[in-house]
Amino acid sequence: MDASKLPDLLRRLKEKRPLVHHITNYVTVNDCANITLFIGAAPVMAEAKEEVADMVSLAGALVLNIGTLRREQVDSMFIAGQKANELGVPIVLDPVGAGATRYRTEVAARLLQQLQVSIIKGNAGEIGTLAGTGGVVRGVDSEGISGDPVQVCRSLADMSGAAVVMSGAADIVTDGRRTVLVENGHEMMGRISGTGCMASSLVGSFAAASDDQVENSAAALAAFGIAGERAAGKASGPYAYKAALMDEVAALTPEDLCKLARLRAL
Amino acid sequence: MDASKLPDLLRRLKEKRPLVHHITNYVTVNDCANITLFIGAAPVMAEAKEEVADMVSLAGALVLNIGTLRREQVDSMFIAGQKANELGVPIVLDPVGAGATRYRTEVAARLLQQLQVSIIKGNAGEIGTLAGTGGVVRGVDSEGISGDPVQVCRSLADMSGAAVVMSGAADIVTDGRRTVLVENGHEMMGRISGTGCMASSLVGSFAAASDDQVENSAAALAAFGIAGERAAGKASGPYAYKAALMDEVAALTPEDLCKLARLRAL
Amino acid sequence: MDASKLPDLLRRLKEKRPLVHHITNYVTVNDCANITLFIGAAPVMAEAKEEVADMVSLAGALVLNIGTLRREQVDSMFIAGQKANELGVPIVLDPVGAGATRYRTEVAARLLQQLQVSIIKGNAGEIGTLAGTGGVVRGVDSEGISGDPVQVCRSLADMSGAAVVMSGAADIVTDGRRTVLVENGHEMMGRISGTGCMASSLVGSFAAASDDQVENSAAALAAFGIAGERAAGKASGPYAYKAALMDEVAALTPEDLCKLARLRAL
Repeated sequence: MDASKLPDLLRRLKEKRPLVHHITNYVTVNDCANITLFIGAAPVMAEAKEEVADMVSLAGALVLNIGTLRREQVDSMFIAGQKANELGVPIVLDPVGAGATRYRTEVAARLLQQLQVSIIKGNAGEIGTLAGTGGVVRGVDSEGISGDPVQVCRSLADMSGAAVVMSGAADIVTDGRRTVLVENGHEMMGRISGTGCMASSLVGSFAAASDDQVENSAAALAAFGIAGERAAGKASGPYAYKAALMDEVAALTPEDLCKLARLRAL
Repeated sequence: MDASKLPDLLRRLKEKRPLVHHITNYVTVNDCANITLFIGAAPVMAEAKEEVADMVSLAGALVLNIGTLRREQVDSMFIAGQKANELGVPIVLDPVGAGATRYRTEVAARLLQQLQVSIIKGNAGEIGTLAGTGGVVRGVDSEGISGDPVQVCRSLADMSGAAVVMSGAADIVTDGRRTVLVENGHEMMGRISGTGCMASSLVGSFAAASDDQVENSAAALAAFGIAGERAAGKASGPYAYKAALMDEVAALTPEDLCKLARLRAL
Repeated sequence: MDASKLPDLLRRLKEKRPLVHHITNYVTVNDCANITLFIGAAPVMAEAKEEVADMVSLAGALVLNIGTLRREQVDSMFIAGQKANELGVPIVLDPVGAGATRYRTEVAARLLQQLQVSIIKGNAGEIGTLAGTGGVVRGVDSEGISGDPVQVCRSLADMSGAAVVMSGAADIVTDGRRTVLVENGHEMMGRISGTGCMASSLVGSFAAASDDQVENSAAALAAFGIAGERAAGKASGPYAYKAALMDEVAALTPEDLCKLARLRAL
């Protein structure tokens, strides 16, 4: 794939304005809601077991983020996920902290076993943990991985049937056959809380744009990375940077995406 | 009513500095806390069933917002609400997403049946749903309503005994007999997450200012709308706009409210 | 102690980059995560009973903040706290709202009885409540205290074996024998939601810097107060002030801490 496909995906996202149903953590949830709005989708957060099947029925995508998982919330993830699978609503899983505690690792693995997830998006340690090839996670930060990152992603894609996104200096996107590196981004993005979650919300927003989850994911990460690059000149401190990043996501046009995306097929 | 009554309500609010007890969602809760502080009241968020009756006993108003409702939280809404009714503490209900899922619609309806709510504040779809006249809600966004909005509000006011506030290009406030349009506001307010919840927190803050909930609500919405208008010149992107909006709420004086409120009695 | 000890504590904190495990409220949690990152530590929020013992095993400090406590969350505080005690991980308790409701007062007292807490950090009313000398708390705000604040802090330190921090115009830090006043800060810090919680996250970040919790706490409060002073010239409204405060925390160097801290030993 090349960058010429991306503008159309952003156009379709903005036209559809898909409802993106999140079951997510309470740390970065406000950032997720705003960034989903700013890219042109409609966020909703709902996690009561009484309503998640109804809510996901209205949705264009379901984002499952285990950043502050609780048992009741996990139960709702399964209910919503099964309904999403029945209806063909794509599921994005962000296995925040998998590898840091047994509970997170187990829950992420069970979600992958029992649901057909469309996209798994994590940092190196989380993806390595789920691939079973080894990954070290401290809290919610990756501290390393065993083996070649691209191979690790491909192997998780093969195991799970999902597209796999590993965030990093260059983001890796693969479905096991096609692999794309997204080389946009800025180191300031790592200095604030929540960029991983925001990226997953963008991936969820784009997941409704087309049936090709490799292209959708690459578009989402390129959009986020471009916004991150543009924000860098506009803020001194990291908190001001976060505000600038948010507004650059809101300002991004399909044309920007075409001109500024740096994709590399492997 | 006319705008000359509003300054005194803001003055009284700032003098009393009422505690505004929120049982609310985890998406916009930080915005609700800050805006409550900025208008001159004191926010507290508390939802454990063990403490909500104690907390609401200290409060000048109780805000119930079902944006991310869970069963335990709903149980606490009833406990807090019954105590509020016993003590004469006004209750503001924001039925976020009523109409989008059966659970939200049912919970909102049960809260209205079993508690004496002072003010119901929602978007068109939510108010239409609760009035039983028809409303379409996707996620937390209104997608339309059947019938004349003013009549829908009046009919919900009659049914519930509460003042009803429907947000929109012009906000409608009515107790079934008196009806006021609040024509302040700016389209940027719809581009960020949480303005509906923030408005409900302001309504809750003003609810302790006087016994007239139509006047209190109109004052709250005029205050918010004026802040929104003033913020519009000060920010390019939506996230910067949110910060400017917050600071304009903090800067608002009783005199501003008198001079800039655009109320129209129907 | 004098200010010459502080730079080294900040240096050690930044070198270690301790994981600071928070079990905290959902109102200010994003601020807590960002400020922990900005000072140079690594935040993680985790509260499932299934994982808190695992998570705290990776941590340099555990922050327990009861701002929106729920029974399940309190259960997890005990599980995490017992593991922290076994492993020698310092615990910081922020008894938000103790004194406002019986439940908060009881939970805070039980945490102090059953866990060995390293640092208790609260406002005057909360500390007075826990010391048993009398304190008035409305919502989460102190409304006054009986007796001399320094004596109240010393008596709670003696009872609990913890260092005690009472926030105020000058912050008091004591372990019952040594007492330090930290005279940094700015009145704007009281105009935004969450500064108390942010201070506790900084105390938690510094708690891993050395074994001396009086010095660690004084360093944290001086750092926060200096950032607050510097931010004051850079913002008109309170919300802009919060962003500036955050960025001043991120910009703070060990040298700043040495030059600008205003400590006074009693």
